[in-house]
Amino acid sequence: MSSTPPRTVFEADFTTALCQIFEEHISFNKVLGLQVTALEAQAAEATVAMRPELIGHFAHHRMHGGVISATLDALGGLAVMTAIGDRHRDELPAARLQRFNKLGTIDLRVDYLRPAIGERFRARAEVLRLGSRVASTRMEFMDAQGRLLSTGSAAYMVS
Amino acid sequence: MSSTPPRTVFEADFTTALCQIFEEHISFNKVLGLQVTALEAQAAEATVAMRPELIGHFAHHRMHGGVISATLDALGGLAVMTAIGDRHRDELPAARLQRFNKLGTIDLRVDYLRPAIGERFRARAEVLRLGSRVASTRMEFMDAQGRLLSTGSAAYMVS
Amino acid sequence: MSSTPPRTVFEADFTTALCQIFEEHISFNKVLGLQVTALEAQAAEATVAMRPELIGHFAHHRMHGGVISATLDALGGLAVMTAIGDRHRDELPAARLQRFNKLGTIDLRVDYLRPAIGERFRARAEVLRLGSRVASTRMEFMDAQGRLLSTGSAAYMVS
Amino acid sequence: MSSTPPRTVFEADFTTALCQIFEEHISFNKVLGLQVTALEAQAAEATVAMRPELIGHFAHHRMHGGVISATLDALGGLAVMTAIGDRHRDELPAARLQRFNKLGTIDLRVDYLRPAIGERFRARAEVLRLGSRVASTRMEFMDAQGRLLSTGSAAYMVS
Repeated sequence: MSSTPPRTVFEADFTTALCQIFEEHISFNKVLGLQVTALEAQAAEATVAMRPELIGHFAHHRMHGGVISATLDALGGLAVMTAIGDRHRDELPAARLQRFNKLGTIDLRVDYLRPAIGERFRARAEVLRLGSRVASTRMEFMDAQGRLLSTGSAAYMVS
Repeated sequence: MSSTPPRTVFEADFTTALCQIFEEHISFNKVLGLQVTALEAQAAEATVAMRPELIGHFAHHRMHGGVISATLDALGGLAVMTAIGDRHRDELPAARLQRFNKLGTIDLRVDYLRPAIGERFRARAEVLRLGSRVASTRMEFMDAQGRLLSTGSAAYMVS
Repeated sequence: MSSTPPRTVFEADFTTALCQIFEEHISFNKVLGLQVTALEAQAAEATVAMRPELIGHFAHHRMHGGVISATLDALGGLAVMTAIGDRHRDELPAARLQRFNKLGTIDLRVDYLRPAIGERFRARAEVLRLGSRVASTRMEFMDAQGRLLSTGSAAYMVS
Repeated sequence: MSSTPPRTVFEADFTTALCQIFEEHISFNKVLGLQVTALEAQAAEATVAMRPELIGHFAHHRMHGGVISATLDALGGLAVMTAIGDRHRDELPAARLQRFNKLGTIDLRVDYLRPAIGERFRARAEVLRLGSRVASTRMEFMDAQGRLLSTGSAAYMVS
């Protein structure tokens, strides 16, 4: 888990397990360097730190668009997990985590507004609708100053 | 460059330089492990090999959706480079490569149809329209047997 | 139904009912003037004729982008209906038609490549994947000469 | 123009001309029944009233998804016009209106969250970035109670 524990609306057990899945078990999230910073009832936030491997344009020292799309996809999925976790608060953490096995991205759109240049970025995803089969999310990718660099939307299969 | 040189419609100089930019200079493409296999007049192909870091779902040994979206975005950009390279065949390779400095993704959509499970994947992008300011592409992500796993579309700024 | 019956792989009853739903019962499709021209096992085609009400740019006599997005959305849905109809060929037409009640668009992307100027246009949609819950489609909008004017992709809820 | 004049940050001449172009000259917007309700510096709002022709699902009395996608596309374009109008406030209205001739949608995504059932709907679009060549917008479609029914994002060519 990230050095400072994330802001969370969930019990410690669930929070710890969710962050571990997201930051450790999903290997590619580790390559991206995603660190969860907030788990809300229907939203999630994470940070990404710039590293040489994440560069997309050597000349301009710009983050690769693929890092951004991968981050927004991953974070949308995490937000859906918080929404499912919130809807089933009556279940034990283990039972709720079990529900995430079926989660999968149906489709994703990313709009690149401004070049991602900087040392640290912040991403936020919120669930617009959680249905019994499909969830829809909206995502934002910002620089350290909170300037909007990219936006995204995605649909996820939830069962 | 990949061990076997790519199928190409361009002169050796241009092909070598383009592959080097794509496979080496764009650092994150190296993380993805993209290897160019074809450069056509308005299209490009590459392969990606499965590696533990690229996993998205630990239980199912499935490739992370972010690897796919990043690959399709990168490959769409490469296809636009071939289209620009083709349109300006009267220019020296260096002059044509110079034109790629302004290339940037405007937006991207990816549809995930089937889980990406396997050892080697193939991606293809083709340019549907190259304008003076904007280019549009369509992309496909397939397994080794040619089964369609994901599709994408993207718009790129070209000047 | 259109003056000439559509090319179809389905029995007459099913074809007639499906065209009637699509062309008559879905009121807005009538405003668009959609005429079914083909029903395949996993694909559908229709034509749209230019009319003054469908104009988007008065100066250029160009078809409104919204006519194109609406047409592609409707046609993607029709293609999903053919795929469902094909999967349940053992059922009576009425039972299969009943299945379409739950159909709904999850999301849609349209890429506008070239202005739609002309008297008659053709749209085609094919199903890339029909799951038990979600279907994905790919669509094309062409002029009378078969030139690609717009492309689309969409996801549909099927149950 | 709509019966009640729209809330606006622009001079009367420009506002009147812009509403006339949007509501009258773009024929298909008239079919949709779009009425401008607000013109801000980088955003626009309009209403749509339900009519039998706009129905998409006869059984459920639901608005056709194509009406929503067409509305969001049109409104995103209007928001880009306000942003261009705002950037060139030093120019006469006629000169600014001239700039809209080159405006065209590059691509559009719409997410359908909840069925559009009701008598009156409201749509809002805001410009996330206005570049010299391309603009990006984000759109929302709501019912009379302000509940979010659909969201959209689009890219527009501006020169």
